[in-house]
Amino acid sequence: MNNKGIIVVVSGFSGAGKGTLMKALLSKYDNYALSISATTRNPRPGETHGKEYFFVTKEEFEKLIAEDGLVEYANYVGNYYGTPKAFVEEKLDQGKDVILEIEIQGALQIKKKFPKALLLFVTPPSVDELKKRLIGRGTETEDVIHGRLLRAKEEGQGIDEYDNIIINDDLDTCVTTMHEIIQAAHYTPDRNVEFINSIREQLSELK
Amino acid sequence: MNNKGIIVVVSGFSGAGKGTLMKALLSKYDNYALSISATTRNPRPGETHGKEYFFVTKEEFEKLIAEDGLVEYANYVGNYYGTPKAFVEEKLDQGKDVILEIEIQGALQIKKKFPKALLLFVTPPSVDELKKRLIGRGTETEDVIHGRLLRAKEEGQGIDEYDNIIINDDLDTCVTTMHEIIQAAHYTPDRNVEFINSIREQLSELK
Repeated sequence: MNNKGIIVVVSGFSGAGKGTLMKALLSKYDNYALSISATTRNPRPGETHGKEYFFVTKEEFEKLIAEDGLVEYANYVGNYYGTPKAFVEEKLDQGKDVILEIEIQGALQIKKKFPKALLLFVTPPSVDELKKRLIGRGTETEDVIHGRLLRAKEEGQGIDEYDNIIINDDLDTCVTTMHEIIQAAHYTPDRNVEFINSIREQLSELK
Repeated sequence: MNNKGIIVVVSGFSGAGKGTLMKALLSKYDNYALSISATTRNPRPGETHGKEYFFVTKEEFEKLIAEDGLVEYANYVGNYYGTPKAFVEEKLDQGKDVILEIEIQGALQIKKKFPKALLLFVTPPSVDELKKRLIGRGTETEDVIHGRLLRAKEEGQGIDEYDNIIINDDLDTCVTTMHEIIQAAHYTPDRNVEFINSIREQLSELK
């Protein structure tokens, strides 16, 4: 049995509660590590280097790109955002499952580079609930609502690319289900190639 | 979320403890049903119709074949063995996950007919343990050992066709893992097509 951790990508509708969910997962189980992104944008008040983000210069970030030191990266509105590979690999080697919160484009980049990554899509339990969260409490501008709606429609098109959907209804149930789904993923043949090959080899040697 | 049960096919090395494992699974959780095969062979002393097997005549069995009333079937040494479809579908509709213990040929028949079936392969935790079980306690004839060995080699070649491997080490841990793997499978996109389509449709109607 393989004791190396697996990469878990978490995407999902805006307002599906991904942040709360992952915080709860990490506080309930000790076999997870949350990946911290690197960015070239300036820290906002209250943000700490190494907690919300690794804040780096443009030169440092481009060096990471040149060295293939990022699992995935993107450029939004003039700033780089990316997932440093070293941190991910260190945690995987320690047997931790590493959680990456990334939107679909990044998720697909990761699946291409790491076919054994597990892709999870978080959704509210019902369309009504999703609507409620998209439309907000009546305090949002039409532009904001329209932006969320467009994003949700786009996000909804990509669900089939994910390995599992996580229905965020009751938080506690949802955290348990998410944990079970990730742990179950450890038991697929493609994540246990060494174990299977070793069994086959030794079977073929039996006289 | 889809509340229909899923078909779970359990195969694995001879001596991997499939029987004990499934008995424990069914006694620990109430969301499973064990499929009972139909056969044309005669009942052995102690076997009851509807418990170990449904004992039917050759004519009855061939009527089931003609009516497409079997999920899979095979003919061994002049006797038919097969899985009646009616029982499986009744239990699936009740929301039960239906467990079928079948060897690889039958498992692949099922995957072809029911692409959403979950295929599990049970294996002992180590090659040494597998050897021990294959070679037996020194009371087996060489022919018996040779037969087991050939079968295990063949079984070992098919592991990649399965969705998950189940490592039967400690029975209680193994039962829990098996349950988690089956429950996690309920949350794949292909098993929640209605839910996903409904979300997409209603998102597209939002103004």
